[in-house]
Amino acid sequence: MKALIISADNFEDTELLVPYYRLKEANIPVAVASISRGVIKGKHGYEVAAYKILDEVNPDDYAILILPGGEAPALLRKEPKVLEISRSFFSHNKPVAAICHGPQILISAQLLKGRRATCYNLVADELKEAGALYEDQEVVVDGNLITSRQPGDLPAFMREAMKQLGL
Amino acid sequence: MKALIISADNFEDTELLVPYYRLKEANIPVAVASISRGVIKGKHGYEVAAYKILDEVNPDDYAILILPGGEAPALLRKEPKVLEISRSFFSHNKPVAAICHGPQILISAQLLKGRRATCYNLVADELKEAGALYEDQEVVVDGNLITSRQPGDLPAFMREAMKQLGL
Repeated sequence: MKALIISADNFEDTELLVPYYRLKEANIPVAVASISRGVIKGKHGYEVAAYKILDEVNPDDYAILILPGGEAPALLRKEPKVLEISRSFFSHNKPVAAICHGPQILISAQLLKGRRATCYNLVADELKEAGALYEDQEVVVDGNLITSRQPGDLPAFMREAMKQLGL
Repeated sequence: MKALIISADNFEDTELLVPYYRLKEANIPVAVASISRGVIKGKHGYEVAAYKILDEVNPDDYAILILPGGEAPALLRKEPKVLEISRSFFSHNKPVAAICHGPQILISAQLLKGRRATCYNLVADELKEAGALYEDQEVVVDGNLITSRQPGDLPAFMREAMKQLGL
């Protein structure tokens, strides 16, 4: 079992690092993919090596997709390959866990219509506009979709993500 | 079961936040104690509320003590109450997990003589000087004592910490 995190510069540091370390604690290899190969830098200055570029990602290789927040999703939602990867996870009913601004990617991929979800409060209007059923909860689970609002929700977010992986 | 994190300003952000969120994921209440009450700020700018001051801490209330790194341990090792709390955990053989500069507190408490341990590389000489058996490993477990070197070791650090809690 492997996990995939897609992010880019100006990610929210803990929203990437907490899931990254948590999955590794469970001995799950984690691939970090981004727009270009190399180091991506968080809003708080943490650096993470993105060994894969988006075009190299085969979503069939991964059991879960994690979409951290920060300013990265604003860039990533413009990348057709990110939307294609997200759709692949949904079409195979595999877990997709998006936090804070992360759900913006799923909005652009038109995957949230009729789905229960949450997100960062400033993204809520956009989420509703996309047809999602917004809930102001620390975590919302709707089938394969796990969403949270902000860093303080990470314990609930990861609890549900690990549960969906059967861990 | 409750957990205790002792830290102060200029903590290494992920070394506090990753254990904090991980324990909360497991539904374990976590108290953060510091020199004064209020918000403590990490080197990367994250803020954490320290609801307890050291004098209010009764170590008997907690199943595990976590000592994150950064510059905080340099301040905390001068606080007699921190050393007293650490000694209480050792005398009851309860888990103490220290990472990076965190073991400096245990050096000052004279708890490492003859114990296998690791720490941040720049602290290694001081650790050996205190009589510890230094090992350059991602995590070293010696009885109740769990030590790690740096943020990248957090998965191994938390794997062993959770194991000691029977989780």
